[in-house]
Amino acid sequence: MRVKQMNIKGGMSALEIIEEMAGAGVFIAGRLARAVRVLSEMIGNEDVTVFFGAAGALVPAGLGRIIAEMIYDGFVDVVVTTGANITHDLIEAFGGAHVKDIKGEDDKLREKGVNRIFDSYVSDDAFVVFEKRIQEILMDIPVEKREKGIPVYELLREVGLRVNYKHSFVKAAAETGVPIFCPAITDSILGLQMWLFSQKNALRLDVLEDLHKIVSMAYESKKAGAFILGGGVPKNHILQAMLLTGRGFDYAVQITLDRPESGGLSGATLSEAKSWGKVAKNAVTVDVIADVTITLPLIFSALKEILGGKKTTTD
Amino acid sequence: MRVKQMNIKGGMSALEIIEEMAGAGVFIAGRLARAVRVLSEMIGNEDVTVFFGAAGALVPAGLGRIIAEMIYDGFVDVVVTTGANITHDLIEAFGGAHVKDIKGEDDKLREKGVNRIFDSYVSDDAFVVFEKRIQEILMDIPVEKREKGIPVYELLREVGLRVNYKHSFVKAAAETGVPIFCPAITDSILGLQMWLFSQKNALRLDVLEDLHKIVSMAYESKKAGAFILGGGVPKNHILQAMLLTGRGFDYAVQITLDRPESGGLSGATLSEAKSWGKVAKNAVTVDVIADVTITLPLIFSALKEILGGKKTTTD
Amino acid sequence: MRVKQMNIKGGMSALEIIEEMAGAGVFIAGRLARAVRVLSEMIGNEDVTVFFGAAGALVPAGLGRIIAEMIYDGFVDVVVTTGANITHDLIEAFGGAHVKDIKGEDDKLREKGVNRIFDSYVSDDAFVVFEKRIQEILMDIPVEKREKGIPVYELLREVGLRVNYKHSFVKAAAETGVPIFCPAITDSILGLQMWLFSQKNALRLDVLEDLHKIVSMAYESKKAGAFILGGGVPKNHILQAMLLTGRGFDYAVQITLDRPESGGLSGATLSEAKSWGKVAKNAVTVDVIADVTITLPLIFSALKEILGGKKTTTD
Amino acid sequence: MRVKQMNIKGGMSALEIIEEMAGAGVFIAGRLARAVRVLSEMIGNEDVTVFFGAAGALVPAGLGRIIAEMIYDGFVDVVVTTGANITHDLIEAFGGAHVKDIKGEDDKLREKGVNRIFDSYVSDDAFVVFEKRIQEILMDIPVEKREKGIPVYELLREVGLRVNYKHSFVKAAAETGVPIFCPAITDSILGLQMWLFSQKNALRLDVLEDLHKIVSMAYESKKAGAFILGGGVPKNHILQAMLLTGRGFDYAVQITLDRPESGGLSGATLSEAKSWGKVAKNAVTVDVIADVTITLPLIFSALKEILGGKKTTTD
Repeated sequence: MRVKQMNIKGGMSALEIIEEMAGAGVFIAGRLARAVRVLSEMIGNEDVTVFFGAAGALVPAGLGRIIAEMIYDGFVDVVVTTGANITHDLIEAFGGAHVKDIKGEDDKLREKGVNRIFDSYVSDDAFVVFEKRIQEILMDIPVEKREKGIPVYELLREVGLRVNYKHSFVKAAAETGVPIFCPAITDSILGLQMWLFSQKNALRLDVLEDLHKIVSMAYESKKAGAFILGGGVPKNHILQAMLLTGRGFDYAVQITLDRPESGGLSGATLSEAKSWGKVAKNAVTVDVIADVTITLPLIFSALKEILGGKKTTTD
Repeated sequence: MRVKQMNIKGGMSALEIIEEMAGAGVFIAGRLARAVRVLSEMIGNEDVTVFFGAAGALVPAGLGRIIAEMIYDGFVDVVVTTGANITHDLIEAFGGAHVKDIKGEDDKLREKGVNRIFDSYVSDDAFVVFEKRIQEILMDIPVEKREKGIPVYELLREVGLRVNYKHSFVKAAAETGVPIFCPAITDSILGLQMWLFSQKNALRLDVLEDLHKIVSMAYESKKAGAFILGGGVPKNHILQAMLLTGRGFDYAVQITLDRPESGGLSGATLSEAKSWGKVAKNAVTVDVIADVTITLPLIFSALKEILGGKKTTTD
Repeated sequence: MRVKQMNIKGGMSALEIIEEMAGAGVFIAGRLARAVRVLSEMIGNEDVTVFFGAAGALVPAGLGRIIAEMIYDGFVDVVVTTGANITHDLIEAFGGAHVKDIKGEDDKLREKGVNRIFDSYVSDDAFVVFEKRIQEILMDIPVEKREKGIPVYELLREVGLRVNYKHSFVKAAAETGVPIFCPAITDSILGLQMWLFSQKNALRLDVLEDLHKIVSMAYESKKAGAFILGGGVPKNHILQAMLLTGRGFDYAVQITLDRPESGGLSGATLSEAKSWGKVAKNAVTVDVIADVTITLPLIFSALKEILGGKKTTTD
Repeated sequence: MRVKQMNIKGGMSALEIIEEMAGAGVFIAGRLARAVRVLSEMIGNEDVTVFFGAAGALVPAGLGRIIAEMIYDGFVDVVVTTGANITHDLIEAFGGAHVKDIKGEDDKLREKGVNRIFDSYVSDDAFVVFEKRIQEILMDIPVEKREKGIPVYELLREVGLRVNYKHSFVKAAAETGVPIFCPAITDSILGLQMWLFSQKNALRLDVLEDLHKIVSMAYESKKAGAFILGGGVPKNHILQAMLLTGRGFDYAVQITLDRPESGGLSGATLSEAKSWGKVAKNAVTVDVIADVTITLPLIFSALKEILGGKKTTTD
């Protein structure tokens, strides 16, 4: 089939541009176009349970609202993410901000109480508010739940229900009943806050129960799809969830700049996951070797144009 | 300034999405948004001579038509590219095709006469036609020009004037008087064809005259802007063109996945070029660390929406 | 200072070559040379508590024995790693093998029960043995410890004490009293085995107690050094350990191919960690943008030549 | 075959470490080990004409002397490189230096006349000396050669014969009769100097004759091997040299961090070159995805230990 030279015009929608990329169909743009097609198919199919994984600093990047809307729109059924993403989501939910266009050496930033995430910044003040609010919220969770050992996904639901910010994905998940799994919760500032809380108050995490829950969701799914941004724990955990089911994901799309040759799971191809049985033999998979901050907005806009969604916006 | 969470909707145009990326303003998407702003400013300013550099397999990727339209639209005043890009442009101009969705090991492809460029393919047949046509065209160029030593940019203009395919960037450049510089012309199949031609016919290349021409254009420019896709010779040659002028580029935007730490020029930052005086001290520069096949269509669509263009399309 | 052209001869030791790289002192080789100098200084200083982080598939790569020897040699005081690394270490400890030079498509490998990790492979049989042995070991841990909530580092020590394989780093750590932290233990096949065990037997993990332990070690250290291979949870967790101490790491060396511009912590510079206070303002830091499988053997050989070590080898 | 855990000791030679990497045999270290084996086989075989390609800033990196010694040792028969590498080699040959450990913003460096190459630096003064000497040398070349059209490889030989610096690879090549091809010579400061010279003196370059020479060497080789550092023109030109012979390279080793998915030739696999017939169907190829500044010293030391060499050192 011929590689069609893309015919791009001013004013084209994301979907129209992606359709031109599909016409060319090769290199990274070709993969992006295939990803949109596969995602629209798996999200549009009611029988598919969609596992969404998100590593990386998505909220400091300005992508947090898109995650929230994907949840409200019913695009995803399970979220697996890092403690950092949850922490930054809650910082914004509690009124803190990520800011940009700050200059200065890193040691000077420390003196000013400014924490850097590449070219996004967050002040110590935001963490002070975060600490105050998260401690209040933890205290507000019924002690019976806290003392007997609470799985992280349930704890996060309790937190989300107490959040009052429409663009928070933690709130979106709590409201819509989408569980958020965070296997490395202690590896985050939110985790540190939980530990500080536990020094004076009842709090036990039951992380094996989290595993029980995600494996059960994998078992109970009619069909399963994975949409994975970045690598790390979220990617591994989603793929691992299917390992005990005896069948792999039916659809899988990953977007990452990590590369396979160093041997780490983060950069491994989805094909490699077939050898483990995590992805089904005949699954449709797309590896998009690309940056998430550029591709996620395009994909989300295109999916919305194709699929609509329960809610148009969190405005 | 606050990192605004992107508010993405279905049906948004490329420019609207890029404006949301500008609102976030960080990471790669933030740089892409700045690139569009800087490009629209430099292209929109009549006083700026725009040097456009293009390495990589743009025509096999389906991006050739965009290059042609950028030229017709008056977005660029000088093109520096590789012999491979010119060869592939002419292959399509002569009726050959790049194709996709071919399977098979590389040694098996060879047996079938299929040449692979990642996941884009071109057959030996296309090269047979290319050889026939390019030999005819070379012969058609007046012998006086060929025997006294012809600069490559003039030779390419002669070729472009003899091409009859509306999406060819070689033709677009010839028709609009935009010179195409190709310092490593002998490092391409087109170069091999020139050598074969020269074995039986008069043909001398005057590559020092090419240098004369591009340096003169740099000297004569009121202001100078660089828009560079990929690294290699095109990037180096554009930056080098300003070296003798005593002033550097006033604007520079590069898009490449190459990284600086290996020390090569391909991945060097535009800031580094300031230390050489290739880019002016106060120049506006944007380094977009991204794939061209995704970003160029977005950028072109956004620029068209902002700037219009002399011609809407080569349809 | 002059960049000295490297003077390389046959038969040179790793340290001699690295000294030539130090003489040149630029690009990636210059950083590798600085890393060896900084590591030898921090490991050689008894006052420095060395936190060692290891993401990626180190045991399938053949680097597991080096990790074990680093522990036996007293090079590191704390290990933070992934559940996968621990799982693969135990697979070899239980008699399983990683193998190479296997051909075949990933779906065909699945049919043969072979799991692929880039170009390293491990059979389902190895996991069967792993399951049997790890279930026996978990059962062998006194039930009182298991039922009241055991921190992961203590559980791993119990496992390590029951391992009988001299090149296992889990055993090395258990024998030498070096704690292994694994914040995302449930995100691994070892974690799945723990969950399976917990379905019929008493087992509760107390992950907040792990956090207590690592933060305490950070507090109690006179000086602190970080040696981090790859990104992910191990990198974040080590840096986070110093966050509450009010002082950052005094030395930090990281080796990773991950890059900062995507905003993730994995690719963040160590300088960025200064803005957070995780690394001290005046700390000596080296970011080596390189592959671990090539650099770790070189570094370890050079460090051994410089520092000796309590044990020469686990032979 | 089992992945052997590497057994690394202090004082091991580069070759001994690489043999341990061969024992593991996977990931990047496994490829490095295979590269050493293949290189020693092809260099050790008198029937193989070795084409050596070198892109990137090798002399500013401190690798120039290794290149010179590889030539003196008879490891390579043809060199293809960039004008920049030749320029920097001559700068050192003419007494100029590359320096390190300079601080300051790029625009401030410009004011001080310091040009940056990542973290290697060269002063304007060095270029002043370069200009003076290269103009003298060009003038010293017999005018008959200059005015009739001189191929670049012959011009570079004339230059090399007039260089008096034992670590210069341009001199090494001239003395040993190894041709240096530089298809993009005009894309360099040396090229600019040639053009300046040509404004007042006779100088014509006959670049088609360069192509004639390298293609002839490919034709006349009994067997052909490629050893390619980095991508760009040197890589493409070496592979292209075999295109017309009807047989491809028998051996090929490349070392680059460039990746294939963007479609450019720089990152293309050597397998892809088989589809074009540039590399023979049954050729032994190794793609080492690694940094040259770390791997070249290791490889050279190991090759010296295996092969010896005509000269031990240029001391």
